Amino acid sequence: MADRPRIAITPGEPAGIGPELVNALGDAFPDARLVAIGNPDQLQASDHLEVLPVHPAAPVTPGQLDPRNAGYVLETLRLAVEGCQQGHFQAMVTGPVHKGVINEAGHPFSGHTEYLAELTDAPMPVMMLAAGSLRVALATTHLPLRAVADAITPARLRTILRILDHDLRRFYAIERPHILVAGLNPHAGESGHMGREEIDTINPVLEALRAAGLHLTGPLPADTLFTPARLEGTDAVLAMYHDQGLPVLKHVGFGHAVNITLGLPIIRTSVDHGTALDLAGQGVADSGSLHAAIREAIDMARAGR
Amino acid sequence: MADRPRIAITPGEPAGIGPELVNALGDAFPDARLVAIGNPDQLQASDHLEVLPVHPAAPVTPGQLDPRNAGYVLETLRLAVEGCQQGHFQAMVTGPVHKGVINEAGHPFSGHTEYLAELTDAPMPVMMLAAGSLRVALATTHLPLRAVADAITPARLRTILRILDHDLRRFYAIERPHILVAGLNPHAGESGHMGREEIDTINPVLEALRAAGLHLTGPLPADTLFTPARLEGTDAVLAMYHDQGLPVLKHVGFGHAVNITLGLPIIRTSVDHGTALDLAGQGVADSGSLHAAIREAIDMARAGR
Repeated sequence: MADRPRIAITPGEPAGIGPELVNALGDAFPDARLVAIGNPDQLQASDHLEVLPVHPAAPVTPGQLDPRNAGYVLETLRLAVEGCQQGHFQAMVTGPVHKGVINEAGHPFSGHTEYLAELTDAPMPVMMLAAGSLRVALATTHLPLRAVADAITPARLRTILRILDHDLRRFYAIERPHILVAGLNPHAGESGHMGREEIDTINPVLEALRAAGLHLTGPLPADTLFTPARLEGTDAVLAMYHDQGLPVLKHVGFGHAVNITLGLPIIRTSVDHGTALDLAGQGVADSGSLHAAIREAIDMARAGR
Repeated sequence: MADRPRIAITPGEPAGIGPELVNALGDAFPDARLVAIGNPDQLQASDHLEVLPVHPAAPVTPGQLDPRNAGYVLETLRLAVEGCQQGHFQAMVTGPVHKGVINEAGHPFSGHTEYLAELTDAPMPVMMLAAGSLRVALATTHLPLRAVADAITPARLRTILRILDHDLRRFYAIERPHILVAGLNPHAGESGHMGREEIDTINPVLEALRAAGLHLTGPLPADTLFTPARLEGTDAVLAMYHDQGLPVLKHVGFGHAVNITLGLPIIRTSVDHGTALDLAGQGVADSGSLHAAIREAIDMARAGR
C-alpha cells in the first residue's frame, strides 16, 4: 500500500471545463498528492495541488476548440502514462477530451481508453464504470448494436473475465471477486427460445473459468440483474454491451460516476462526462465526477498490490 | 370518467402465488370494485372482492404445475377480455401465468400480451412498464439481440409511437405526451460513427411524426437518457429493445413495477413477476407489484376517455 500516493491529473481539453474543475478541488484529498499536468496559465498550484507545466501551442479561449492544441492534450496524457510507468505516479485521472478536434488536427484518436492501451502495450483494455458500490464492466463497448452478437466470442469473453477478476483482486483487494454475468439476449435467451449465444458461447466460457476458480454467476437476464437482492454481496457486473449495462449505472451514479480502465499495467480512472464547452469558463460545472474519479484512483492505488 | 370502475383480476397459474396475492388485497382499493375470475376454492370473496367462479379441471396443489389446468388459466383470461369488451369491466389485471405448462398442454401460447392481442384483434400490442413516474415502452420485445436492428423498421416505429402517443392521451389524460426516444446504437450512433440506424430509420420517422404534431425528443443516447435532468417533465421513454429499457425500470421499480399493454381496445395491466412456484402456498410472497398493477388499472380506467 502506497502512503499518500501521487496522482497525476490530466485536465483534458483546455477549452472545456476540465481546468476549472481541477482548480476547484481544494483540500478534499489529504491522503494523496495531486499533480495536475497541463497549462500553467490555467492551473493554479497550491498547497494541495502541484502543477507540472505543459504549454499549449495556441492561446486558450474557454468554449472555443482549437486544433492547434490537440498535440498539447495528447502530450499531457503521454506524460501521465510515462510517470505512472516509471513509478513517479501511482495512478492517473483523466479529464474530458474532445475526440473530434484531436482527429481534425490529424491525430487518429478513438478515445482515451484505446490511446492509453496503445501507449502501454495493453492488448485488451476493459471499460468499467463505478457508482457507489455498483461496478459495471463491458464485454463490448463502442460497436453498432448489430455487430455486438458476433463480437461476443469465447476468446474475448474469457480474456475480459480474466482481466476483470484479476484487476478486482489487484486494485480492490477483493479476495475472490463475485462477478454477475449478463446474458446477451432478453431473459438470457430463455433456454434458447430467444437466442442461443448463452448456450453456445457464454455458458461454456463461464463453466471453464469456474473450473479455474473464478466466482461467476450467470448468464443472468439483464432486466432483473440490477435489483438489490441480486446485487447484494457481489463485486461487479459484466454486461455484454454498452446500453445493457450503462443506463442503470448512470441512473444510479449521475454526477458521480467514474470510468475505470482495467487491463492496463497502470491505474487509470476518468470522469464520465464530456468537455461541456457551453459551460466552460463560468465556474458552474459540477465537479462530482472528477472528485469521484480521484477518490477511486487513490483507493485503487492504496489497495493495489 | 368511470365512477368506481369494475376491475377484473385473473390470478393466473393456480399453483403459483397469484391466488394468495389476490386474497391478501384487503380493502386497499375503495375507489374500485374488484372481481377475481378463477377457482372459488382458492379465492376468498369478501366485501372488497367479488369472485366470478371458474373451476379448474384438476385439484390444485401449490407449487405443482398440472397441464390439465392450462385450459382453466386461458378461460379466465377469455372471460376477463370478454367482460372488458362488453363493458362489464373497465380494465383487467393479470397475475402470473406459466408459459411452459400451457404450451405443454398443447395450447400455443407465447405470452399474455400476444394472447390478449389475438383475442381482441389488436395488430400491434405495445409493452410498457411503469414504476413511479417512469414509463418505458419497447419498440421490440422478446427477440434475440442479433435480430433487433433489422426489426426496427420505419413502419414498426411509426405505429408504435402513434400507439404510445394515443394511449398516453387516452388512458393517462396527458394533453400532448412528451416522449423520449432512445437511439438503437451506443451514443445514439454518434453521428453515424457507431451505426447508421438513427440517421437512416429513426430520425426520419421522428421528423415525420413531429410534423404530425407529436412531441418527440431523440434519438438520444440510452446511457444518459435515464438521468433526472433528462427525464424531468417527460411522460414516457421509448426504448428500442428489451435490455436497453428494462434494467433501469426494474432497478427503480423492483417490487412495484407494472406491466401495461397498450394498443389494445381494452385496458390491461399486469404484475411484472412470475409464478414463484417455490413460494406458493406459504403466504410470504410480496404483493407490491399486484397492488401497483391494480392501482394503475384503476387510474387508467378513471382517466380513460
